[in-house]
Amino acid sequence: MVSKKVYQPTESLLNQINSPEDLRKLDREALPFLCKEIREMLIEVVSKNGGHLSSNLGIVEATVALHYVFQSPEDKILWDVGHQAYVHKILTGRREQFSTIRQENGLSGFPKQKESPHDAFVAGHSSNSISAALGIAKAARLSGKEQHTVAVIGDGALTGGEAYEGLNNAGRSKERLCVILNDNEVSISKNVGAISKHLANIRTKPHYFRAKDRIEGLFDRLGAVGRPFKKLIVSVKKMVKDSLYDSNLFENFGFVYLGPVDGHDCNSLIDVFQRAKSLNRPVLIHMHTTKGKGYSFAEENPGAYHGAPSFDAEKGGLDIISEDCFSCVFGKELARLATEDPAICAVTAAMKYGTGLQYFRDGIRDRLFDVGIAEQHAVTFSAGLAAQGMKPVFAVYSTFLQRAYDQVLEDCAIENNKVVLAVDRAGIVGEDGETHQGIFDVSFLSAIPGITIFSPSSYQELKDDLFSALYRTDGLVAIRYPRGKEPAELAVFDAAFAPFRVIGEEAPSVLLVTYGRITAQAILAVEALKSHGVCAAVLQLNQIHPIPDEAILEALKAGKVFFFEEGIAKGSVAEHFGGRLLQAGFSGTYRFRAIDNQFVPHAPAKNALHHLGLDAEGMVSFVNQFI
Amino acid sequence: MVSKKVYQPTESLLNQINSPEDLRKLDREALPFLCKEIREMLIEVVSKNGGHLSSNLGIVEATVALHYVFQSPEDKILWDVGHQAYVHKILTGRREQFSTIRQENGLSGFPKQKESPHDAFVAGHSSNSISAALGIAKAARLSGKEQHTVAVIGDGALTGGEAYEGLNNAGRSKERLCVILNDNEVSISKNVGAISKHLANIRTKPHYFRAKDRIEGLFDRLGAVGRPFKKLIVSVKKMVKDSLYDSNLFENFGFVYLGPVDGHDCNSLIDVFQRAKSLNRPVLIHMHTTKGKGYSFAEENPGAYHGAPSFDAEKGGLDIISEDCFSCVFGKELARLATEDPAICAVTAAMKYGTGLQYFRDGIRDRLFDVGIAEQHAVTFSAGLAAQGMKPVFAVYSTFLQRAYDQVLEDCAIENNKVVLAVDRAGIVGEDGETHQGIFDVSFLSAIPGITIFSPSSYQELKDDLFSALYRTDGLVAIRYPRGKEPAELAVFDAAFAPFRVIGEEAPSVLLVTYGRITAQAILAVEALKSHGVCAAVLQLNQIHPIPDEAILEALKAGKVFFFEEGIAKGSVAEHFGGRLLQAGFSGTYRFRAIDNQFVPHAPAKNALHHLGLDAEGMVSFVNQFI
Repeated sequence: MVSKKVYQPTESLLNQINSPEDLRKLDREALPFLCKEIREMLIEVVSKNGGHLSSNLGIVEATVALHYVFQSPEDKILWDVGHQAYVHKILTGRREQFSTIRQENGLSGFPKQKESPHDAFVAGHSSNSISAALGIAKAARLSGKEQHTVAVIGDGALTGGEAYEGLNNAGRSKERLCVILNDNEVSISKNVGAISKHLANIRTKPHYFRAKDRIEGLFDRLGAVGRPFKKLIVSVKKMVKDSLYDSNLFENFGFVYLGPVDGHDCNSLIDVFQRAKSLNRPVLIHMHTTKGKGYSFAEENPGAYHGAPSFDAEKGGLDIISEDCFSCVFGKELARLATEDPAICAVTAAMKYGTGLQYFRDGIRDRLFDVGIAEQHAVTFSAGLAAQGMKPVFAVYSTFLQRAYDQVLEDCAIENNKVVLAVDRAGIVGEDGETHQGIFDVSFLSAIPGITIFSPSSYQELKDDLFSALYRTDGLVAIRYPRGKEPAELAVFDAAFAPFRVIGEEAPSVLLVTYGRITAQAILAVEALKSHGVCAAVLQLNQIHPIPDEAILEALKAGKVFFFEEGIAKGSVAEHFGGRLLQAGFSGTYRFRAIDNQFVPHAPAKNALHHLGLDAEGMVSFVNQFI
Repeated sequence: MVSKKVYQPTESLLNQINSPEDLRKLDREALPFLCKEIREMLIEVVSKNGGHLSSNLGIVEATVALHYVFQSPEDKILWDVGHQAYVHKILTGRREQFSTIRQENGLSGFPKQKESPHDAFVAGHSSNSISAALGIAKAARLSGKEQHTVAVIGDGALTGGEAYEGLNNAGRSKERLCVILNDNEVSISKNVGAISKHLANIRTKPHYFRAKDRIEGLFDRLGAVGRPFKKLIVSVKKMVKDSLYDSNLFENFGFVYLGPVDGHDCNSLIDVFQRAKSLNRPVLIHMHTTKGKGYSFAEENPGAYHGAPSFDAEKGGLDIISEDCFSCVFGKELARLATEDPAICAVTAAMKYGTGLQYFRDGIRDRLFDVGIAEQHAVTFSAGLAAQGMKPVFAVYSTFLQRAYDQVLEDCAIENNKVVLAVDRAGIVGEDGETHQGIFDVSFLSAIPGITIFSPSSYQELKDDLFSALYRTDGLVAIRYPRGKEPAELAVFDAAFAPFRVIGEEAPSVLLVTYGRITAQAILAVEALKSHGVCAAVLQLNQIHPIPDEAILEALKAGKVFFFEEGIAKGSVAEHFGGRLLQAGFSGTYRFRAIDNQFVPHAPAKNALHHLGLDAEGMVSFVNQFI
């Protein structure tokens, strides 16, 4: 197969890899060539499909080395956050489907237990891999299996509290557990806090661990000097040794620490993974990688390729965020307000660019706080700011706010600490799929006593709502808005702030109630219904919680009321709205359509909304069932 | 006032303290006598009112010293978890009200911003104090205030991930922030994991920090030896120094570390607090205390007095958990099933005794996992166990499950990993009040696709539901049950498992729908209604989600349906039930009463339910409005 001489493959190596077993048949010398082929495939496919390029380019050699040493699927490999599992998918029998990644009905952009036995655990949200790996390792021990479990976690994910809870429980567990710290010196935005500095410290002492041996040797030689210092030296030696051997964070947690190792050198990686495997106990391997490795555009600007839409592979170069999107409008408007009001602070959990907070600069930069991937801290920290009279705005993706539900309830709501939650990526997010859909926030937030929730459907409404949240609303407020642009149909509504609006016929017999971007679809649906002679109108809510009394009165006037909602049905505004109608003695027809008891798989948002019956066509056919 | 000679107070010192200013007027020598008086007050009041005795006895001197050094309310003192703030309350103008603590309309058992300007931040759930303190400190800096912020956190709370997120952000912040680690070597149950071992390591090296100076001295003297080792010594000296000065977890986080200090020696405490204050930067003070200090019963068994009902102060001695309560029935039954089924595992987040898991012993102890105060980890760890075919049951208080909402949704539900959540303290919990009420779980859990939720109203139903959850139900299951005993009225129903049950008249015109322990109240209400000639019955749900179709059909037969729910209204079963009726074309009267848009303050559960209109009397008067 593969010659041991100056190695030069004559045909594609990658095309021979249909399972990790095939990989393990290759000679070590062949692996760099395989890595080169994998990089080419990554760039080709991700430039077409969009996705997480930088993180996957950074982990090519490590993934190859992992599958070279560990025996998946018997050994379990977990990918924290999950978006760096593309190479893993290519090597575990999904090479031919790889071109479908993130496409509807294609491979998921994240590990999925249901997709492959090689995907040991679901991933999507950060910092949970060590906890899951420990569960898997304990189960193996209880079942008498001798498998190894590996969790690959980035330095960014390590700023999340659950990673620490995992380390705290795993380090002393005695299980066959390897934690591989993929340290690329950048989390999604620039890394923050003590952990990143600690890692940098270790990295800048490349000979640090060899030095341990040197110091021990020194003491042995000093001992030979004998005489006056002998006794002191013996006791001090022990103390220094203790200190040296308990000298970094991970050793404090009880892990054997191996590293740092060059994450782009297959040979070193294989050696260190083999050593880790042979120890049969918790080991942390500190691996240093370059995000975007091997693709100059991405190496220079990894943030821009974190989660990217499709782009031109030859030219590279794409903007981090479109100038024309809800996130951007939010960020600019908040920065404008903050310039005028010194109490306004902005908080982000490692999503400065994703949430549009890069506009916090010049005179207001000291009021922008990037706390790392630490949503719990972000919310409590905001509540602390608020308790002292500041006006903190925490900008966060809907799906990640789930991580801080308790803090919103306990630290913000109970004492009415005035925090504004800017809930980005609310609703269907598209290609990221099940783990990232922003469809639960309305349900879990609206149960919180005292909260006000806005859901603007246009840029102008978003600006109005932000002002209203900061200056006209008491207590905790959430403003939720979708990924991407405002629907063109809604840009025209730039009237003064209104908690709701009726669009269409006066005194309609059929009323479509909705909010957010699908208001545009409801308007189209009403047009279609009208063309069939139905007297219909849209009631668009802007303040979705508490539902304005006047909006309920409008609905009571209509005979047939239909609510459409881009969110989970249980605990939805549609359900609250129905409850209000019922309690008000409404005797007409009320039906609602929301996302009922299902997770929504990855697909372009437009397609997903179509499948859910939440576009104009779906709305019309739903209404037609009852009129 | 106070003599500097051999000090012996002639009158009560405590009676002179109406504010921290009064305290600071005392001579240092007087403080131990003051502490003695405080202890007596603590034992007297807590033995009557119930509450957290051990933790408050342990922190008497530290609280006195804190208020002696820091100037509350200008300086901000935060109490993590909050139940160790009794002494703080006594010293900050609430001495005379202290006898009302935890009583209805009395002082809260936790810090409350609304209760006093000295309560800088709400507390109740663990591990958030550092995050809140950092927010407060940042706000102070932005406002140009020179205040100090102090967070007091126990070693138990330090196992929670948010504490780590806070440390990671606070350590390098440059703010005037003191974190006081109250290390009593026990969290609520026995402490677990690497952090507790790390703290033990530091504690067992009492001269460790003095040793730093000794080693430096050694090197200076070695340097004088000169000759062959001189050069090597110089470079090694620097390396060893670096290691020594970066040698514990907290220094890794960027804090100045002071300690360990004896937490029962006022003088030492005042000295170390003054030093910390003078540093004007993040400092961590490691303080060693004895839980239950000064009360022999509590010192010997601090766990029993963690959160205790009232007891006999003279005799001490009370059981950790009643033999007759839902938690206990659950723990025994799960242990019984686990003895027969080797796949069953039990997981707790530092609440082994509170949740009844102490029955996991003998042959099954290796399947009980106490992960520390780390609910996020507990859920993901359980999902990891489940991914490998184990049957994990995570027993957790409803209010603390809020901390792991994201993990339940992402790590359990999306991949259908079979985890059973045993949700203890569901519903009104009584004296712990707002921060601890278990009234949100139904709302946030029922939105999760694929989940099944049971809410047994009797011990027998709890056992049936547990069996059903483990063996008859696919995917994620929650079983929620209240604190305390089953209502006597419900113990009689020991029929085979049923998802719901109708109690009372056949074909009633008035149907009261409910679930859980207030079913007993609904039965009483129906009796009362019947005595006034109303044909009524109770529909008691056991499986509350998804609502059984047959239960909806039962309700459709009745003309007037009333739902009573011991939980938050938004996202309640009552709301889901109404939605189902509405969509089924129900034309009768439907009204529900649940906890609407409010937090429920501390009061005995019975009183709280009365105020909420959820006892028989309230139900009857509610129904009478509509018939």
